[in-house]
This record gives sequence, C-alpha cells and structure tokens, in this order.
Amino acid sequence: MDVAGVSVNLTSTTGGVTAPLGFRAAGIHCGVKRRRPDLAVVASDLACVAAGVFTSNRVKAAPVRYSQEVIAHGQARAIVANSGNANACTGPKGQRDAEEMARLVARSIQVAPEEVLVASTGIIGELLPMDALRRGIPLACEHLGQSGEGAATAILTTDSGPKTAAATLEIDGAPVRIGGMAKGAGMIHPKLATTLCFLTTDARLPASVLDSALRTAVAGSFNRITVDGDTSTNDCVLALANGAAGNEPIVGGVALRRFEEALGDVTLDLAMQVVRDGEGATKVAEIEVTGASSRSDADLVAYRLANSLLVKTALHGAEPNWGRLMAALGSAGAEIAEDRVQIFVGPAQIVRDGLGVEASLSAAAAELRGSEIELRIELGLGEGSANVLTCDLSEEYIRINGSYAAEAGMVS
Amino acid sequence: MDVAGVSVNLTSTTGGVTAPLGFRAAGIHCGVKRRRPDLAVVASDLACVAAGVFTSNRVKAAPVRYSQEVIAHGQARAIVANSGNANACTGPKGQRDAEEMARLVARSIQVAPEEVLVASTGIIGELLPMDALRRGIPLACEHLGQSGEGAATAILTTDSGPKTAAATLEIDGAPVRIGGMAKGAGMIHPKLATTLCFLTTDARLPASVLDSALRTAVAGSFNRITVDGDTSTNDCVLALANGAAGNEPIVGGVALRRFEEALGDVTLDLAMQVVRDGEGATKVAEIEVTGASSRSDADLVAYRLANSLLVKTALHGAEPNWGRLMAALGSAGAEIAEDRVQIFVGPAQIVRDGLGVEASLSAAAAELRGSEIELRIELGLGEGSANVLTCDLSEEYIRINGSYAAEAGMVS
Repeated sequence: MDVAGVSVNLTSTTGGVTAPLGFRAAGIHCGVKRRRPDLAVVASDLACVAAGVFTSNRVKAAPVRYSQEVIAHGQARAIVANSGNANACTGPKGQRDAEEMARLVARSIQVAPEEVLVASTGIIGELLPMDALRRGIPLACEHLGQSGEGAATAILTTDSGPKTAAATLEIDGAPVRIGGMAKGAGMIHPKLATTLCFLTTDARLPASVLDSALRTAVAGSFNRITVDGDTSTNDCVLALANGAAGNEPIVGGVALRRFEEALGDVTLDLAMQVVRDGEGATKVAEIEVTGASSRSDADLVAYRLANSLLVKTALHGAEPNWGRLMAALGSAGAEIAEDRVQIFVGPAQIVRDGLGVEASLSAAAAELRGSEIELRIELGLGEGSANVLTCDLSEEYIRINGSYAAEAGMVS
Repeated sequence: MDVAGVSVNLTSTTGGVTAPLGFRAAGIHCGVKRRRPDLAVVASDLACVAAGVFTSNRVKAAPVRYSQEVIAHGQARAIVANSGNANACTGPKGQRDAEEMARLVARSIQVAPEEVLVASTGIIGELLPMDALRRGIPLACEHLGQSGEGAATAILTTDSGPKTAAATLEIDGAPVRIGGMAKGAGMIHPKLATTLCFLTTDARLPASVLDSALRTAVAGSFNRITVDGDTSTNDCVLALANGAAGNEPIVGGVALRRFEEALGDVTLDLAMQVVRDGEGATKVAEIEVTGASSRSDADLVAYRLANSLLVKTALHGAEPNWGRLMAALGSAGAEIAEDRVQIFVGPAQIVRDGLGVEASLSAAAAELRGSEIELRIELGLGEGSANVLTCDLSEEYIRINGSYAAEAGMVS
C-alpha cells in the first residue's frame, strides 16, 4: 500500500511494546504471585502523549481510577502493571497503594508520579503485598531493556502464553512503529478480572488524535470480544506515543487514516489472541450480522448470538442447529421478519427465508468442526450491520471456573 | 388462613390439571417421538374462560400464533400439546398443522375448533408428523380421565420427570381448586425450546380477572426463572377456568387476592420444579436484590448475577468468590455505590461496605455446598428490589447441549 506518501507494513514485527523507538520494558517476578513473573514496567525515554480506554464497570479497581486521572492530562511516560492481584474492592488503602506504585516507578526512572500509569490484574478484594512491590519496582526499572516479551509475560493470569503484536507504517518516508501487548484469558472477561492492553508508538501526534485513534481501534477489536457484557473491574487499554520516529505530526487526512488502520491491526491481532486463548476455548467464531433495521439492532443480534450458551455449546459440539440460532436471534429484542432471515456457516446456507436448508447441514457441520468459524446472518430489513468475535463453551471452562484448585493455581 | 370467608389450603394436592372439578386429561404416545409419551390433551366438561401468556421471542412457533388468536376471544375448552417437535420455523404448512391439531380435538370432543388451544415443544424447523397426530389425537381424547400425571409426562423433552402442582382455597364455603403442569429442562430455556405450563381451575371468574391473575402469577414465578432472557419460540402459560366450583364469581377484594395468591403458589411451585430440573443443574439459587435506586436497576443487577457464567460456575464450585459478585453487579448497568454494597450468602455476610469479610468465607462456602442457596445483595441506595431464581452451570450442561448424541436422544 502506498497512498500519498503513506504506506503500511502489516507484517507483525517482534518486540511488542519495545518495537517502537525509545521504549524499554521489563518483566520480573517480585512476589505478588508465588513463582511466576508478576510485575511489568514499560517506559519511554522521551515525553509521551497518552490515551486510555477504561472499563465501564461501576466497580472500578484503584489503579483504574488512578490511571484515569493521569490520562485526563494527556501525558505519561511509563506504565507499571502487576498480575496476581487486581487491587479492586480494596478501599482507600488500595487507592494509596496504586499511588505508591506510581511513585516507586517515578523515583526509579526520574519522572513525575503524575506521568506513570498503573494497572493491576488478579484476585479481587485483597490488598497488594506492597513490600514485594517496593522491592520489585526499582529492580524492574533497573532491568528496563528490549524486553517486550518479558513484560508481556509478567501481566498474564490464566493465559496460556504472552500476547504481543507490532506493525510498521511509513509517513513521508519516516518509518513509524506501533507495538502492543495484552492479556486476557476468560472466554468472557475472566474471574481474575480483566483484559489489559498496552500500546506504544514512536509516532508523533497530538494527544487528542491518539485518543480518537485509540477509541476507533478499541471499538473494532477489544469491544468486539466483550462477549457477554461482563466488563471487569480492571479492564483498560493504554497507549503511549513518544514521537521518536520524527514524522510530521499526524493530525488528519491519509496519514491519520493509515495510522488508525495500523493501530486497528495491532489491537485486532491482540484481541484475536485473547479470544483464541479464552478459558477452555477450542475455536473462535466471527458472527456477522447484516441487513438489520439499524446498527443497534445489528449489535443486539450479534451479541445475543455471541453470548448464547446454546449457540456456544452448539459451536463446541459442531452442531449445525439452525433452530437454536433462529430462537436466539428472535430473542435479541431486535426487529426480525422470520421469513427474511438467511443464515450461513462459512459458504453453507443453513437457513433460507427463515426455513432450514436440510441439504446444507453436513457441509455446515464440517465448517463447524474447524477452529475458525464464520457465521453470517442476513436479516433482510435494512442497512444495519455488526460483527463480533466469540468462542465456544467447553467443559474445560466449567472446570477452570468452578473449582478452588484452579483459582489457587492461578496465583501461584 | 381465613379472612372474610376466604381460606387457602396451600398443601399441594395430587392430580395436577385434573385436580379441579370438571377437567379430564390424557397423555399417550402417538409417534412424534420414537417411544416416549408425546401427546397430551386437557379438556373441560364445561365452557371455560381462558387466559394465556406467550413468549416475547420475535420468532414465534405456529401453535403460539394460533393460540394467541384463541386467547384473544377469552374462551377455550381444551388444550392439545405435543412434545418432540416444536412446529417452529415451519412456514405456512406449520400454521395449517397447528390448526388441524385443534380441529382434530374439536371433532373428537364435540367443541368448536376456536375453543382448542395448541402447544408444541421439541425440535425447531421440522414439520409435524401429521399422520401420527391424526391417529393419536382421537385416541387421546378417548382416554380422557383423571390422568393429570400422564398428561404432564407427555409434554416432557429433556426433563427428568413430570412436574405437577395443585392447591385448594375456599371462597364463602365453596372449595375452589387450582391445578397445573409444566415442562422445562433447560437451565436456561432449552434447545428444544420452551417452558410450557398449563393451569386449570374450577373457580368461577371473568376472563379479564383470570387474565390479570395469570399475569401476576407468571411475573412472580416463570418470569423470575427466565435466567438469560433467552425466551424460546414456543414458551407459553395457558389457563382455563370452568366455574365448576360454583363459587360466587371472583371479581375483586379478598377473594381475588387469595385466588391470586393460590395461583401464584401453584405457578411458583412449578417454576421451582423447572429450575431444579435444569439441564445439568445441581443446585438452585435465589438472588435477592434490595436497596437499588429503582425497580429496574434491581432487575438489572439480579438478572446480571443470575446470568453470569462466572457466578454460575462459582455456585457450582461452592466458591464464595465475592470479587466475582462485585464485578458482575458493577457491570449490570445499574447505579452502584461500591462502598454501600452488602452481600450475604444465607446468613453469612461476605461483603460489608464493598469490602470482603474474610472471617465469613468458610461459613459462606458451607452455605454454597447446599442445594438451595440464598444470595442477598443490598445496594444501600433506594427502595428498588427484585428477586430471581437461577441454577448453577455444570460440565453436564455442556455435555447435554454440545453433542449430537444428546439431541438425538431427546426425541427418541
């Protein structure tokens, strides 16, 4: 691609948050968890503009409230994040602890505490082991380097592995890099709360532009995998831009569109990694709804299907049960004309004008046995469309979430 | 109880729909399913007033649309219901089949087809085997008798057993009886669609009064177990009142209140049987929310908790994970002041002013190991309250809903 001096290289590059110039990161074990890495720091050598998108949950963890204040000023220099403890429902002490985490980073890397973003993920309702963090944070700051992967590892909870992505685009000959890391691990948002995503870029652009680009990117990625509206207390997506690429500031036009596109690619890549790694998930389904009376009706239907236990178990069992799909979409609260509904699993049309297509069922079952499934619903009423990513519901999910043992395991 | 000549005997009596005077019923096998009973007829010897509450799903089965027309006239004499096939998403032919089922009953018992209600439950999207029903319906009508249990058995799908209830109240010295039967079998509404409930009473009362009493009863029972809004294509609650008790017509005052109370007891009894028999369910939880800013906020919170996979799996694992509860209630969309939230499991307070009560957790875990759990959430904001019945989510649910084999089994 090369339009008006802007080109995007969509091939992922390695390094995650340290792929862009001027960012360093570290991930260490400090003792929040028993053994596994539990503390990450990401820092920029230069001043950054910052943007963030936070959980809409009315119960917000202390670090979320703290970081919202930092973002309100549009500037930050570093992110500190721990796993193993969410610092949520921890009262005024929790708030003070989040502030102290920021101060500890600020002191170590010589920035102002108001320039440090804080995030936590893990068990809700326990106070942070601040002694461990007081020892750990200076140590992590000493080890800051090209350790995007190490940092990505230190924010995991029940995830099976780290999630990083990066992309490069060119603006007027200057390469601009975007990197990111994420953690997820619930099919829905997990019991240890939280999807976290940290994004870095060496692009030069105003905070307001970064904010709007981030919101667009999140709407097309992480907000599409919020598969049951079960937002956690700790969800956040944070972005830092330090301008080290030396590009002409991105303020609009083609450059902005391409930056948004590249940022969207990185966040979608991370969101897909999160949903693929959902607790107990064995497959991912993209649910596309078109022809709804309105955008909001399309959303209702897409999320209804994505969150229906019966649809999720049918995906798991590779069962082309179109009756369940009809019943689920009818209960979405959206306008539906039964005899205009068309449903496709991949290329196989299993519902035509509201009636089942018997001949397609074996082809549909074959599609459903794959690990990436496309489910398309045409409502035949208007122009509204939506698409959502979901995963199947397996016995394994119940085992992970139904037992003490698993929970204990998660903080080890 | 005995107030102003009205008393209620809440002890269940046997007989289900045939407990009230002048009602007969039959349940037979006619061949919709391979072996098990699949056809029920309930009929009154006298003219009846009738009322019904139907699914809000936009995809409505043919019998639902047909019965809605019958109910619009406020009169009926009989109900015919089959299991094994939902007659949903079956187009104009399905509509004609529902009408023919009514005509077959009408001819057999000498009433008008407009006086016969029709219900179906089972697989969506297949045409009814009308030959089997043409033979079966006259046969069932020949066998009408005191077979409330037999009829209750013939409407089951994945249920583990029939669900019947009955109550007696006295109005000015005249005993008045209410009977009912139901089927359920999804933890949520099951894949074979549908909660069906048929109620009979020998009370004398106008159709409009029966209608309002039925709506009140359903609001307090079946609508409290709609645990994920996943209404089916076939849900319906039908009531017939034939006046055989000879009581003074119930039009208001204490007599109406007591009739509503008794009808509410019967429907709640049946709804509890449905939720206890949920697919894979091992326990039932009553979730009570008080102190919400409004009734609708209370509903949002109660349903959010009742439908949260994380809460359901925590119930299953007897895990007093109050953090999950806080996160779930925060995501309900209702007004929440974190530091005013109190949460109780039975008598054990696990959250005080938004913070966990460590000392109560073992008592709460013991409560959660029981089969009937009370979960109370006080929001401390206003007067809004709600309560909802739900059940746990087990591996068994996934097995039932994730496999072809199970589905084939259900229609055998």
